[in-house]
Amino acid sequence: MQLAVIDDKILPYAELDSAYLDRGTFFGDGVYEVIRSYDGRLFALEQHLARFDRSLREAGIEGINVNEVRGRVEEVFDRAGIPNARVYFHITRGCGDRNHGLVPGIRPRFFLTLMQLADKAANKENGVSVSTFPDWRWKRCDIKSLNLLPNVLARIDAEKKGCAEAILVNDAGEITEGSSSAFFMIRSGTEVVTRPLGPDILPSITRAIVDRLARASGLRVVEAPYSPQDAARADELFLAVTTQDIVPVVRFDGIQIGDGRPGPCTRALIKAFSEFVRDPQMNCKPGERSC
Amino acid sequence: MQLAVIDDKILPYAELDSAYLDRGTFFGDGVYEVIRSYDGRLFALEQHLARFDRSLREAGIEGINVNEVRGRVEEVFDRAGIPNARVYFHITRGCGDRNHGLVPGIRPRFFLTLMQLADKAANKENGVSVSTFPDWRWKRCDIKSLNLLPNVLARIDAEKKGCAEAILVNDAGEITEGSSSAFFMIRSGTEVVTRPLGPDILPSITRAIVDRLARASGLRVVEAPYSPQDAARADELFLAVTTQDIVPVVRFDGIQIGDGRPGPCTRALIKAFSEFVRDPQMNCKPGERSC
Repeated sequence: MQLAVIDDKILPYAELDSAYLDRGTFFGDGVYEVIRSYDGRLFALEQHLARFDRSLREAGIEGINVNEVRGRVEEVFDRAGIPNARVYFHITRGCGDRNHGLVPGIRPRFFLTLMQLADKAANKENGVSVSTFPDWRWKRCDIKSLNLLPNVLARIDAEKKGCAEAILVNDAGEITEGSSSAFFMIRSGTEVVTRPLGPDILPSITRAIVDRLARASGLRVVEAPYSPQDAARADELFLAVTTQDIVPVVRFDGIQIGDGRPGPCTRALIKAFSEFVRDPQMNCKPGERSC
Repeated sequence: MQLAVIDDKILPYAELDSAYLDRGTFFGDGVYEVIRSYDGRLFALEQHLARFDRSLREAGIEGINVNEVRGRVEEVFDRAGIPNARVYFHITRGCGDRNHGLVPGIRPRFFLTLMQLADKAANKENGVSVSTFPDWRWKRCDIKSLNLLPNVLARIDAEKKGCAEAILVNDAGEITEGSSSAFFMIRSGTEVVTRPLGPDILPSITRAIVDRLARASGLRVVEAPYSPQDAARADELFLAVTTQDIVPVVRFDGIQIGDGRPGPCTRALIKAFSEFVRDPQMNCKPGERSC
C-alpha cells in the first residue's frame, strides 16, 4: 500500500491532508506578498496587488482574479480589527502528487495570515547592525516567490553575528539588497544611492516610495551598483521594508556608520514616510473599495 | 483577532494546523531525497543518506540523526510491500510564525511518501526529447533543497514543447544539468562527457554510478563544460536520474541525435546498470540493516 509519514506517524498515502502535497512545500512553487496597515488602514494595497499579479504571471500560475484576492484581504482585515496588522498571503500552483511538470486540473491554492505587527520602534530610533553575505539567490529575484532558502541562510548568519539583517553581495562584489529588505546608502550629504531595478532584486514597493519621498525632499536619487566598501564609507545607510518602512543602519560588517546614530537624511525620510502613510492615495480604509 | 485563510475558509490563526506554518512552504527551508527500489530492494540507500546528511549540514538544519531516517525509510518500505517503489522524503527546519531568521525551540519536521514507481519503459526503449532553458537556479545547487521553482518553470517549458526534460544552460552558455536529472553526452564514439561537480550542480548518485560503469566498460569519462551546440552534435545523449536510472535522449532542441534511436553506448550502459542494481553492495533488502 502507498504510504506517507508525518514525523513519527505512518498513514496511507490516500489519507494525507492535501496541505502536505502542496507544491509550495515540494518546490516553493508559489508567490507571495506582505502588506501592512497603519492605524486601521491597509497601506499601498494596490501596488502590492499589482506586483502580486506580475509574480503570478511570471511564474505561470493561472486562473487567479486579483480582484478576488483584494476582496479576501479586505474582508479579513475588516474582520480582524487589528489597526497595525501584517498581512501575509501566498498562492501556490496547487496540491497533488509530486511531479515537477504540468499537472492537469491542478487548482491554485490561497493562504493568508493576518497578525498583529511586531513593534520594532527601537530599531527605528537607534538603528540596527547589518552584515554581508553572498547573494546565492536565483536569477529571477524580481518574482516574489517562495524560494527563499538563500535569504533564510543569509539572515541566520546575520543573526548569529548579532545583526538584524543580511546585506547580499553578488559575484561582482556589488550589493544587491537585504535578505528581506531594500538597501540604501547616503553619500556626499544629499545623494541617495540604491541598486537599479532588474531581475536580481525585488521591485520593492517601499523602495519606490522612498525614491519618491527623497526626490520630493530635494535629495538626489542615484540608481547605481555599489560595493560593501562604498557602504562602509557612506554618510548614512538604511533599509526599506514593508513591515517597518525605513530602518536606519548604524553598523555595517562591524564598522560604525557616521556617529553611530541614525543620520539626518534618514531621520528626515522616516518623518516624510510617516506623513506619507496618511496620504489617502496610498491607503485603503476598511470598507473603501475604490482606493 | 489574528486570522488565517485557507482558500475560502477564514479561521482564527491560533487554530491553524501546523502543516500550514511549515518553513518548507514559507521559504522552501528544507532538504530532500528521492530513493527507489528495484524488485523489493532499496537501491543505493547509504549514498542517498550520506548526501541527505550533507544537505542538512550545509543548510544548517540540526538535530537530525540520519540513522533514524534510515530506520523510518526501511520500516515504511517493509510495511508498504511495493517491490518497485519511489520513496520521497524531506526534512524542513520546522513550523512556526513566519520569520526568516532563527526561531528558538523550532523542531525539524520529517515527511515521507512511498509510491508505486511509474513505469516509463517506453522512455528507455525509444528515448526522449529534451529542450534547453536558462539555468535560473541559486548558487548552491549542490544542496538538494526544496527551492525548486526554477526547475519547475524549466520543466513546464519543456513539456509545453513536447519534451520530457529541460536541459539547463548557464550564463556562460554551458549545460549544467537537467531540471531533475544529470546529463551526459557521448562523442568520438567512446568518450562520455558530463559537467564537473561543483556548487552549480547536484552531486547525483546515478551520475556517480554511470561514471563507474562507463569506466568499467572501457569508455573514457571526461568531466568538462560543454555547450548546447556540442550536445546537438553529439553521437549520443542521455539523462541519469534515480527513478529511471539511464534515459536515452534522441532529440535535443528539435535536432535529431544520431539516427534518432538510443545509441550503442547508451544501450550498453543501460544494460550494465540493470546488472549493477542486483549488486548486493548497492542494495538494501528489507530487514537487512547492515547494507
